[in-house]
Amino acid sequence: MTAHDAVEVIIAKRGGGVLSDSQIDWVIDAYTRGEVADEQMSSLAMAILLNGMTRPEISRWTAAMIASGERMSFSALPVPTADKHSTGGVGDKITLPLAPLVAACGVAVPQLSGRGLGHTGGTLDKLEAIPGWRAALSNEEMFAQLRDVGAVICAAGDGLAPADKKLYALRDVTGTVEAIPLIASSIMSKKIAEGTGSLVLDVKVGTGAFMKSLPDAQELARTMVDLGTDAGVHTVALLTDMSTPLGLTAGNAIEVTESVEVLAGGGPADVVSLTVELAREMLRGAGRDDVDPADVLASGKAMDAWRRMIAAQGGDPDAALPVARESHVVAAPSSGVLTRLDAMAVGLAAWRLGAGRARKEDPVQAGAGVVWHARPGDTVTAGQPLFTLLTDEPDRFDRALASLDGGYDIAPAGTPFTATPLLLDRIS
Amino acid sequence: MTAHDAVEVIIAKRGGGVLSDSQIDWVIDAYTRGEVADEQMSSLAMAILLNGMTRPEISRWTAAMIASGERMSFSALPVPTADKHSTGGVGDKITLPLAPLVAACGVAVPQLSGRGLGHTGGTLDKLEAIPGWRAALSNEEMFAQLRDVGAVICAAGDGLAPADKKLYALRDVTGTVEAIPLIASSIMSKKIAEGTGSLVLDVKVGTGAFMKSLPDAQELARTMVDLGTDAGVHTVALLTDMSTPLGLTAGNAIEVTESVEVLAGGGPADVVSLTVELAREMLRGAGRDDVDPADVLASGKAMDAWRRMIAAQGGDPDAALPVARESHVVAAPSSGVLTRLDAMAVGLAAWRLGAGRARKEDPVQAGAGVVWHARPGDTVTAGQPLFTLLTDEPDRFDRALASLDGGYDIAPAGTPFTATPLLLDRIS
Repeated sequence: MTAHDAVEVIIAKRGGGVLSDSQIDWVIDAYTRGEVADEQMSSLAMAILLNGMTRPEISRWTAAMIASGERMSFSALPVPTADKHSTGGVGDKITLPLAPLVAACGVAVPQLSGRGLGHTGGTLDKLEAIPGWRAALSNEEMFAQLRDVGAVICAAGDGLAPADKKLYALRDVTGTVEAIPLIASSIMSKKIAEGTGSLVLDVKVGTGAFMKSLPDAQELARTMVDLGTDAGVHTVALLTDMSTPLGLTAGNAIEVTESVEVLAGGGPADVVSLTVELAREMLRGAGRDDVDPADVLASGKAMDAWRRMIAAQGGDPDAALPVARESHVVAAPSSGVLTRLDAMAVGLAAWRLGAGRARKEDPVQAGAGVVWHARPGDTVTAGQPLFTLLTDEPDRFDRALASLDGGYDIAPAGTPFTATPLLLDRIS
Repeated sequence: MTAHDAVEVIIAKRGGGVLSDSQIDWVIDAYTRGEVADEQMSSLAMAILLNGMTRPEISRWTAAMIASGERMSFSALPVPTADKHSTGGVGDKITLPLAPLVAACGVAVPQLSGRGLGHTGGTLDKLEAIPGWRAALSNEEMFAQLRDVGAVICAAGDGLAPADKKLYALRDVTGTVEAIPLIASSIMSKKIAEGTGSLVLDVKVGTGAFMKSLPDAQELARTMVDLGTDAGVHTVALLTDMSTPLGLTAGNAIEVTESVEVLAGGGPADVVSLTVELAREMLRGAGRDDVDPADVLASGKAMDAWRRMIAAQGGDPDAALPVARESHVVAAPSSGVLTRLDAMAVGLAAWRLGAGRARKEDPVQAGAGVVWHARPGDTVTAGQPLFTLLTDEPDRFDRALASLDGGYDIAPAGTPFTATPLLLDRIS
C-alpha cells in the first residue's frame, strides 16, 4: 500500500478535489491502525461532509472499510440469503416479524443488528426484553442457526468493518454524522461484509428519521443501492414515511408484544403492510417471488419460525415480558380527529422514559416506552386515553410529557384528513 | 459562563451559521480546559475554514483566546510601545535591525517572536546563532530590558493565549492552517495579549509567503487591522512582496551578519528600505513621526541599541558566529540577466540544508543556509557563483540543489526587466 500523509489527504478534500484510490485505501488503513489520529480523521470527515464525494470515491471508501476486517459468506447454505436494513425510525419493530416471515418463505435471513442510540430504538434492545435471549453469537453459531432455523438476528462481531466502528463513534462526537457519503458507506460496508446475497433498504423519511426530506432520502438510497450493486449484492431501497411513528408502541418489550400480534395474524395495519411489502422485496431479490408472504403470514408458519428463532438464541417465546413499574395516562384534551402524531416527539418521549440510551454504555429499561391509543385519522373523545407512558422511574415522566407537548394535533370532528402514504418511493 | 455542547457548536458552523458570543466563549474555554476534545476542535476548525466567520465572530474568537491566559501591559513605561509582526517570509531578518532602530528613535519594542517551522525562518533561531544569547526571559526581565535598553526580542511565555498555542499545534496536523479567521485570530490574540500600544503588520504576498495572492493577503490584513483597532491597539498593515527572497541570505548566522551590516550603514538595499519603512510606520503608530529613522540608522545609534539588546540577553555582539562545516557553490549556467529568483525555492533549499526544522522539537543548524550572489535585475556571467549552499551535513546538498532547480531564470543580456515593487499596499 502506498504511504500518504494525512494532511495531504485532508487538504485535497478540503479543496474540493477527488481523492485517489490510493489515498482512500491508505487513510482508512492508517486510521484503523491508529497512524492517522482521530483529530485528523474528524477534519477529513467535516471536509467530506461539506465538499462531498463522487460515486467512485464512495465506492472505494466503502471497499476500504470492508477490507479493514473479515468478510462473511453464506454461499455454503442450500437456500439464498436476504437481509433488510432500516435507517432508523420510531416504533420501527419491523425486523422482528419480518425475519421469521422471510425464513418461513424459504429464504435465509442473516440479520446483524445494532443497539439504539438517541430517539430511534435498536432491534437488539427490543429482543433483549425477552427473558434468556442473547444477542452475541459466534460466526459458527450464526451459520448453524441460519441452516437450522433460517433466520438469525444478532450483534455484529468485532471483526466486521472495524474501520467503520471507529469512524462511526468519532462522527457521533464531532458533528459529522449527517454526511451522505459517510452514512451510505457506513451502512453498506457492514451489510456487504456480512455476506448477504440480497438486501432491501428501508430508508425512512420525515420528522422522526435521519433524513427529513424526500430528496435527501432519495440521494442516500440511490448511493446505497449503487454501492450494493457494485459489490455484487442485489440491492433495492424502499423510501417509507417516518413523520408518524409505526404501529401503536415505541419501546422494547411493548414492541415485541406488538410484533408477536402481527405474527399471530393481528397487529396494526401499517406494521403488517410494511412487513409484507419488505418481505416481498426480499423474496424478489433472492429470486423467490413465487412465494406470497401474505399467505405465509396467514398460515402461522412465520410464528413458528419466530418461536424457533427466539429459542435458538436462548429466549423463551412463552415467557411473560417485563412490565414497567409505573405508568401515566395522557387524556385527549379535546374531541375531534387526530390529524398529526409527530414521530420525533414520540421517539424522544420513549427515549426519555428509559427505552433508549444517551451514551453507548448506558442500560435501557425493557418495560419503558410510549403506547398511543389513536393514529392519525382516528376520531378521539375529550378525556379518553391518548398516550400511556411507561417507565420504572416516575421522575422521568415530566421530561417525557414535555416532549409530547405540541407533538400532535386534534382538529374538530369532520375536518378533512388525508393520510400520508407509507410507501413514498422505490429505488433499484 | 453558559455551558454549550461541542456538537451543537460544530453543527451550527457546519450549517453556515453565525456562532453566538456565548458559544465562542464556551468552546475556547472548554477546549483550553480539555473538555472539548482535539477531534471536536479539528472538525470545527475545518467547518470554519470552509464556511468562514463574520467579523464579529472573529473578534469574539480572538477575545476569547486572549482571555484564556494573561495579558501584559507596558503602560508603566515612560515611552510608548510599538511592535511589528511579519506573516513569514524567506530571508526575512527585518526584526533584527528594526527593533534596535525603533528603540534608538525613542519608542520601546516588546517583540515576542517564534521559532521557524517549515520553509520560513524564525527570528529566535537566527538570534540563537549568537553565542550566549538566550530567548527565554521572565516578564520581569522583559520589562526591565524594555526600560533600560528599549528593545527586547524574546520567546512568548506559556501564559499568553494558551488556547492559541493548543489550537495552532492542532491546525498544523489537521489541514486547517489556511483559514483567514484562524490565522488572523491566532496572530492578533498573541499580539494584543503581549500589550503593545501599536502594531505594524508586515503581510507577505507571493510564492514564498503563506498568502500567494494579493486579494487573500488584503483580506487577512484587513481582518487583522480591524481586530487590533477593536482591541484598542493602533494597527497598520503593509503588504510586501515575497515572490523574491529578502536580501542576499537565508539562514540563521548569515542573516545575523546581514542584519549587522544594515545597522552598520550597509547591507542590501531592499532590507534597508523595508527596515526604514516599517520603522516609520511604527513611529507613526506610537505618535513619534517627528523622528526620521533613516537619520537615526545613519547616526550609528541603532547599532548601539543592537549591542545593548544582545548583551542584555547574554549574547556577545562581538563574538564570531558559527560557520557551516561544508559549502557548495552553484555556478550560473549561462550569461545574461537574472529575471527571477523564487522565494519558495530558496526557502526550501535553506530549510533542507538544516537552517529550519521539520518538527517543532528538531534542532536547527546555526551555520546552514543559502547565500545568493545576484538579485533579480542583476547581470550574471556564465560560471560565476550564483548560490553558495552551507550546511554541516554534506548529504543535504542533493535535496537542496533539487529545490533550486527551476527556481530562477536567466534571460539573454538586454532583455527588458521590471522589478516587482517591494511595497504592494498599505491597510489601516
